[in-house]
Amino acid sequence: MSSPDSTRTGSGKGTGQGPTDSTAMTQPFPASRKVYVEGTIPGVRVPMREISLTPTKTMNGDASSPNPSVTVYDTSGPYTDPSEMIDVRAGLVPKRRNWILGQNDVEELPRVSSEYGHSRAVDPKLAGLRFTHIRKPLRAKPGKNVTQLHYARKGIITPEMEYIAIRENQACESARELASSNGNGGGQPSGDSQLLVQHPGQAWGARIPARISPEFVRDEVARGRAIIPLNINHPESEPMIIGRNFLVKINANIGNSAVASSIEEEVEKMVWAIRWGADTVMDLSTGKHIHETREWIIRNSPVPIGTVPIYQALEKVGGKAEELTWELYRDTLIEQAEQGVDYFTIHAGVRLRYVPLTAKRMTGIVSRGGAIHAKWCLAHHQENFAYQHFEEICEIMKAYDVSFSLGDGLRPGSIADANDEAQFAELETLGELTRLAWKHDVQVMIEGPGHVPMHLIQVNMEKQLNECHESPFYTLGPLTTDIAPGYDHITSGIGAAMIGWYGCAMLCYVTPKEHLGLPNREDVKAGVITYKIAAHAADLAKGHPGAQVRDNALSKARFEFRWEDQFNLSLDPDTARAYHDATLPDNAAKVAHFCSMCGPHFCSMKITQDVRDYAAQKQLDEQQALQIGMKEKAEEFLKGGAEIYR
Amino acid sequence: MSSPDSTRTGSGKGTGQGPTDSTAMTQPFPASRKVYVEGTIPGVRVPMREISLTPTKTMNGDASSPNPSVTVYDTSGPYTDPSEMIDVRAGLVPKRRNWILGQNDVEELPRVSSEYGHSRAVDPKLAGLRFTHIRKPLRAKPGKNVTQLHYARKGIITPEMEYIAIRENQACESARELASSNGNGGGQPSGDSQLLVQHPGQAWGARIPARISPEFVRDEVARGRAIIPLNINHPESEPMIIGRNFLVKINANIGNSAVASSIEEEVEKMVWAIRWGADTVMDLSTGKHIHETREWIIRNSPVPIGTVPIYQALEKVGGKAEELTWELYRDTLIEQAEQGVDYFTIHAGVRLRYVPLTAKRMTGIVSRGGAIHAKWCLAHHQENFAYQHFEEICEIMKAYDVSFSLGDGLRPGSIADANDEAQFAELETLGELTRLAWKHDVQVMIEGPGHVPMHLIQVNMEKQLNECHESPFYTLGPLTTDIAPGYDHITSGIGAAMIGWYGCAMLCYVTPKEHLGLPNREDVKAGVITYKIAAHAADLAKGHPGAQVRDNALSKARFEFRWEDQFNLSLDPDTARAYHDATLPDNAAKVAHFCSMCGPHFCSMKITQDVRDYAAQKQLDEQQALQIGMKEKAEEFLKGGAEIYR
Repeated sequence: MSSPDSTRTGSGKGTGQGPTDSTAMTQPFPASRKVYVEGTIPGVRVPMREISLTPTKTMNGDASSPNPSVTVYDTSGPYTDPSEMIDVRAGLVPKRRNWILGQNDVEELPRVSSEYGHSRAVDPKLAGLRFTHIRKPLRAKPGKNVTQLHYARKGIITPEMEYIAIRENQACESARELASSNGNGGGQPSGDSQLLVQHPGQAWGARIPARISPEFVRDEVARGRAIIPLNINHPESEPMIIGRNFLVKINANIGNSAVASSIEEEVEKMVWAIRWGADTVMDLSTGKHIHETREWIIRNSPVPIGTVPIYQALEKVGGKAEELTWELYRDTLIEQAEQGVDYFTIHAGVRLRYVPLTAKRMTGIVSRGGAIHAKWCLAHHQENFAYQHFEEICEIMKAYDVSFSLGDGLRPGSIADANDEAQFAELETLGELTRLAWKHDVQVMIEGPGHVPMHLIQVNMEKQLNECHESPFYTLGPLTTDIAPGYDHITSGIGAAMIGWYGCAMLCYVTPKEHLGLPNREDVKAGVITYKIAAHAADLAKGHPGAQVRDNALSKARFEFRWEDQFNLSLDPDTARAYHDATLPDNAAKVAHFCSMCGPHFCSMKITQDVRDYAAQKQLDEQQALQIGMKEKAEEFLKGGAEIYR
Repeated sequence: MSSPDSTRTGSGKGTGQGPTDSTAMTQPFPASRKVYVEGTIPGVRVPMREISLTPTKTMNGDASSPNPSVTVYDTSGPYTDPSEMIDVRAGLVPKRRNWILGQNDVEELPRVSSEYGHSRAVDPKLAGLRFTHIRKPLRAKPGKNVTQLHYARKGIITPEMEYIAIRENQACESARELASSNGNGGGQPSGDSQLLVQHPGQAWGARIPARISPEFVRDEVARGRAIIPLNINHPESEPMIIGRNFLVKINANIGNSAVASSIEEEVEKMVWAIRWGADTVMDLSTGKHIHETREWIIRNSPVPIGTVPIYQALEKVGGKAEELTWELYRDTLIEQAEQGVDYFTIHAGVRLRYVPLTAKRMTGIVSRGGAIHAKWCLAHHQENFAYQHFEEICEIMKAYDVSFSLGDGLRPGSIADANDEAQFAELETLGELTRLAWKHDVQVMIEGPGHVPMHLIQVNMEKQLNECHESPFYTLGPLTTDIAPGYDHITSGIGAAMIGWYGCAMLCYVTPKEHLGLPNREDVKAGVITYKIAAHAADLAKGHPGAQVRDNALSKARFEFRWEDQFNLSLDPDTARAYHDATLPDNAAKVAHFCSMCGPHFCSMKITQDVRDYAAQKQLDEQQALQIGMKEKAEEFLKGGAEIYR
């Protein structure tokens, strides 16, 4: 983090890379601006991205009608707001801090309470690596519980809940208002109201209201059907929600490893991942300086950060699973909770008695955390310490509002092992632990597989809902075949879209490098975009209100040859534009009324538009034209040269 | 096609590119060899690809057990057989010609019967472009019908049918034999029989027998549930079948356009597409020299070639749809049938009265062929000539055994337009035309959408089966969202996998350039691999016998750290290896017992293997270890240093 210049236009925000690079990561999206919607609670100001569109022109160019801008959910945080100063050495502005202090149930600690955290904080050798603006940690006052679930159950609508309600609504509300303000009388739907046309979905039991209210958010959290992963020590985070009655979310994994990578790269990957749409980021670092890397990431992250604390615990005992202890693990949880981690993957469901169920599997235990706990269990012939001490863990979680992501340590690592006894035995235990966590008002989501053929995906979702009492499901893929290493973003994107449709609340991305190597920046982007596709396809299939607006706007732009609008509305405008330019680089081609696949004579869209214009010109509904005077009209048309644009 | 050297190692097989390039396109896959399985009918010799694997080693390296090779379906033709001489100027060996002549129902024509084809054949200006070894065309003798459907209904098992039975079986039969010859006694399944373990699928009414017999092939063809697209003028083609009781197939589109591309590139794209797994290739050329391009492609293609004849017909009238005539279209069908096109997309279902149904769509008519017919219908206020003359078309089809691919000219071009009245009205007409074609013993498949949200996909499949009497369905995607141009191989790969599972027989690929530009070689590969994934995921979900063998073999290799085997078993060994090497380039890493994601201490697979080896060493089932003497064993283990490999 030696970058001398810390501003937006500087050399890479501590990334050690040049300004061009940095700009590419933080510049606003084309034709987009950051807008903020204010709430009723002070400080609630929700960022969204507004994509402005060009007007629709008639073919002869003498008239045009405006197209309303499209507002989309924005995970990129202040990085894409040109009016914000970015300084990764200082971290993001802790916008949520006043809300946290306002609850009057937290205290600032004089120093971090974990032994390990303290030792890192005072180690002079780490001075060069350390984030320099570390705040003193907050913790619940004795006897207090600071979880969003606790507030929700007490009937309190927190600022975070109002924020989330506004955020979740954005895709449809503004469009709806526009449609109604532009009027919608008469037979033919106006361009704006056409954008709101949407298929009724098949929601498999999800109940998504037409408008998300703060009270609905509170109620869903109170029921445990959704979580708001927000550690009180991560006030930089923009509130978001994970639950099947909300937009489907995606997670991107980053993390250095013992083999490769560095702190700079990981912070960059986080910024890069949220630029393309990651709703949360998991830091799965396993190399040196895990503690310091995490601090940099959290201080600069506007999205919730998840971790798997057992990775760091194992690092602390030199990789020897059998030397792990509950005390060490506990200290690690506190260390990370005080840094601000928003959710912990905890493999408390890997019970001793389930381990032998994996012995005859094709691929044994493929969850790293699951394997570590299993090895410890066998070495000691004792029950998993995370299971044994689960309620003590709950006590920690509720003092900082860390959410559980109950790990599926026995998830299948191959198609052959899908839906087996070991997997489902663990799932039942996760259901039992969900109840325990809820007893403490601690928020819970459940992790799921893995590798599952398509026809076995839905039963995973159904079983999770049943066994785990409708707590949110968070799956890795699942991969629908094992035969395509190098393309596992796609093998898993198929499964992710399906399980998202069936009710999965968050989809953990898989990159093209899965099973093969560490993802680089391009891999992270490919993984995120693929999973945005999966999540959005799921929202459409569930009939999420307003989900289809962006599809409609993009398709309308495509049909009307508004190429720039088509690019700008896409998930990845850069790639869409570059692919178009690869065939037709001229700027003229971007206003051309044909596309590069077909050439001018063969463009079906142009022909269709001819057909439509013809009907309009004749002041005749095409239906009428076909019923009356058909022959006469034909002759007239042909006499006129059979050309539409005379 | 000016390449002076026409052999395999020569400069590009008429491609105008260098030898390195050419080699990359035709070299055998790593650790693979071409094997041929003989049938009982003379000349039936079915190519397959056999991937040999390395032995499984125990962790201490003092023992090993062999892994059986895995045989996979091979679409690449002679190009990947080093013993074959390839000369694109001469074309492939017409291996099927004797079978065709052997039926004694065809005659060789003195010259091509189409006017246009003849004019091209004698035009001296085209000498430099023309394929030089054009055979005289074959046609059914007067009163004869040479379709595979005709033979099937007469109870004749053709050589093509036996060929297909052997080809479809290969994934499981050899593996099964190996498993039984290696013995399978005792409690623990042997490595070989473990490879045959497979989930029962959910086949949605498909009935796939454990072993495909030639009689089953005949019966499915006779029922119209499957087609064998094999023009008697394409004897270079290796027989394959399209039907929902067989492996799901994929199609790759190639074709130059008025805007870009050339003959050489299209032949190369065909070879490239079949290398990666395209089962058929559609030549959608719309530029100059369509006729000559097609000749080169067919003469060098071991897979069936499909076309959309209306594209060429429109070219012949300078792009003016209203100037099309039935006579011109008819001549085009004959021209292409005599070149050897195996299936024609014919948009006979775009009836005049359906066209107005599209006027209020978000994206009108997006099928090029559909739009051309619609424009003609409106200009003339007459019924679609392809509908009017449908039985005359059948007469042509049965004289050459060209199969119908009844085009979905009114398919939805956006999520908004999915499953609308226009689409389903046309589908009903396609059902009516299917009956007409069957009256003439002409083979039929039905094309399908398009853009469809996930929850509306299954009804497409069900309606097609009902309306079109179980004839095979052949869909483009469908794309499950419109918002990701640049990634439409993925948006559509999701839909393709799902509809393949539901019963679609062939999936038409979509490349990343869809909607944006012309696919280059990398795009073709990305599209093909994505669709192989979709088709295979569908086979797995349907429970296709033997489909899981490759997944099992790859996952076993992965679990055992046989990196090379993992690469070689993958759909794209080059990319898998390259991605691995990007993180750990050393050759040593390819025998390492950890993977690059995690480093040595964190590899869950290694830990699992430790667990498993521990149980084996102790001569104890892990279950027993847990039940008896647990404490004692633990102490012993820890005393020994808690290391597995002493």
